[in-house]
Amino acid sequence: MLQLQAAGRAVRAMAEWAKQLAGIKGVVLDISGVLYDGGGEGGGVPIPGSIEAVEKIKASGLKLRFCTNETQATRGKFVAKLQRLGFNILVNEVTAPAPAACRILKERNLRPHLLIHDDLVPEFDQLDKANPNCVVIGDAADNFSYKNLNEAFRVLIGLENPILISLGRGRYYKETDGLKLDVGVYMKALEYACDVQAEVVGKPAKMFFQSALAEMEVEPQQAIMIGDDIVNDVGGAQQCGMRALQVRTGKYRPCDEQHPEVKADGYVNNLAEAVDIIVKQLHK
Amino acid sequence: MLQLQAAGRAVRAMAEWAKQLAGIKGVVLDISGVLYDGGGEGGGVPIPGSIEAVEKIKASGLKLRFCTNETQATRGKFVAKLQRLGFNILVNEVTAPAPAACRILKERNLRPHLLIHDDLVPEFDQLDKANPNCVVIGDAADNFSYKNLNEAFRVLIGLENPILISLGRGRYYKETDGLKLDVGVYMKALEYACDVQAEVVGKPAKMFFQSALAEMEVEPQQAIMIGDDIVNDVGGAQQCGMRALQVRTGKYRPCDEQHPEVKADGYVNNLAEAVDIIVKQLHK
Repeated sequence: MLQLQAAGRAVRAMAEWAKQLAGIKGVVLDISGVLYDGGGEGGGVPIPGSIEAVEKIKASGLKLRFCTNETQATRGKFVAKLQRLGFNILVNEVTAPAPAACRILKERNLRPHLLIHDDLVPEFDQLDKANPNCVVIGDAADNFSYKNLNEAFRVLIGLENPILISLGRGRYYKETDGLKLDVGVYMKALEYACDVQAEVVGKPAKMFFQSALAEMEVEPQQAIMIGDDIVNDVGGAQQCGMRALQVRTGKYRPCDEQHPEVKADGYVNNLAEAVDIIVKQLHK
Repeated sequence: MLQLQAAGRAVRAMAEWAKQLAGIKGVVLDISGVLYDGGGEGGGVPIPGSIEAVEKIKASGLKLRFCTNETQATRGKFVAKLQRLGFNILVNEVTAPAPAACRILKERNLRPHLLIHDDLVPEFDQLDKANPNCVVIGDAADNFSYKNLNEAFRVLIGLENPILISLGRGRYYKETDGLKLDVGVYMKALEYACDVQAEVVGKPAKMFFQSALAEMEVEPQQAIMIGDDIVNDVGGAQQCGMRALQVRTGKYRPCDEQHPEVKADGYVNNLAEAVDIIVKQLHK
């Protein structure tokens, strides 16, 4: 009886956010922790039902954009990995921090000192990096050695007007072998060392979501974000005027549903469940 | 003429803080950047006049205590290096974070996971480190690898009540080959990653200065601190009720004299100058 009541409550709660789906024209998907869990030999494993969920969105007529803070590889390499895992995804469907940062650097005539993953370096090939006048930091993983962080620090503290650009502000992410520190942690380290405030490119920056929406040609109130990060995916998208769901996969933790500052429009067990409900609602 | 006026002002300014030296019974000295500059082959070079200045304090009848945030070596090893450089200094004259942290860990039954310099490890020999229930972070230098920081992070985030103890909160220090990131930067990184607040052992913690004063058996208002760090030496000592001078050696930067929060009781070119004035004042 108690179980039945709980199931009833879950259905009612689900129905609640589903009712608010009127007018949805586009879906924005986070990748890591939503489509797949990274790490291990093959570079990761798909989350059950996610491959089919992506197909279902594409078949539904909804517009689709992938929006990631992934900075451990070029967009091309990253997409190729996802294709190998079975996903129907193309490079030009993905909004990622490194290409966005390149545009900003060019616009402002900035020459970056890079503290990033080796595999991301080709994204910055076209930029002048001699005599740097800013520091760009990404998810450098093992490249976050004391020597490399100290080098970035010395560049930054030596600048008259220190500019630190961070490709995301995440705390950590989950790989198949456990939690890993993300770029935001090292951003905070350099902020404290040099008494500066980083400019964040990537989620949760408003401009980053806006450029994903512009690519889809939909308005914020016509789009729904689906992510596993309550602050950077859900909170960021909401601040931009979008609706947002949190999936209970990836780095999701039960305490996220009682987050002091961010409340998702809905919580779903996984991407497949979210897409089922969204697509069903379309045909009503 | 202008030069003469400037010299006149400097003498007047100097006289100003010297006048307030009445009642001084004890001197607390920072070590790195005050006695010597660290780094290089011999482990560092004495700052001119500092060896003699220490002798002069000892001959004056003033009580003397060394108070350092050094955590790259055991107190014994560190003092042996300073003796080799020519300083008259003994292990039991030095207040350092690691022995203070050991006392706290024992009192609170804490079993530390250590993220520290290899040479500091022996200070923690007597403690149980199995199944850790806190993380202790020191100036680990090259041990601040991604792997090691990630390991400390996983211990901390896995604790029901995460306790992070940091041996200092400095941003950076100066070695003969340039600026180096200090423990505070990595403390901030872990604080952000785990959403915790570290407990700082070492300067500028009040308890740390108080234990140095207790060793000397003098009251705060009878003691003067001399350091190169405007926040951790000068600000910390003043918060504890002591007077404090900043030397223009070590990591001193001219902008320190316009620091928005901390104003030293006096600024001196180096330790030798400070000690000359203090000792002269004694005999008035």
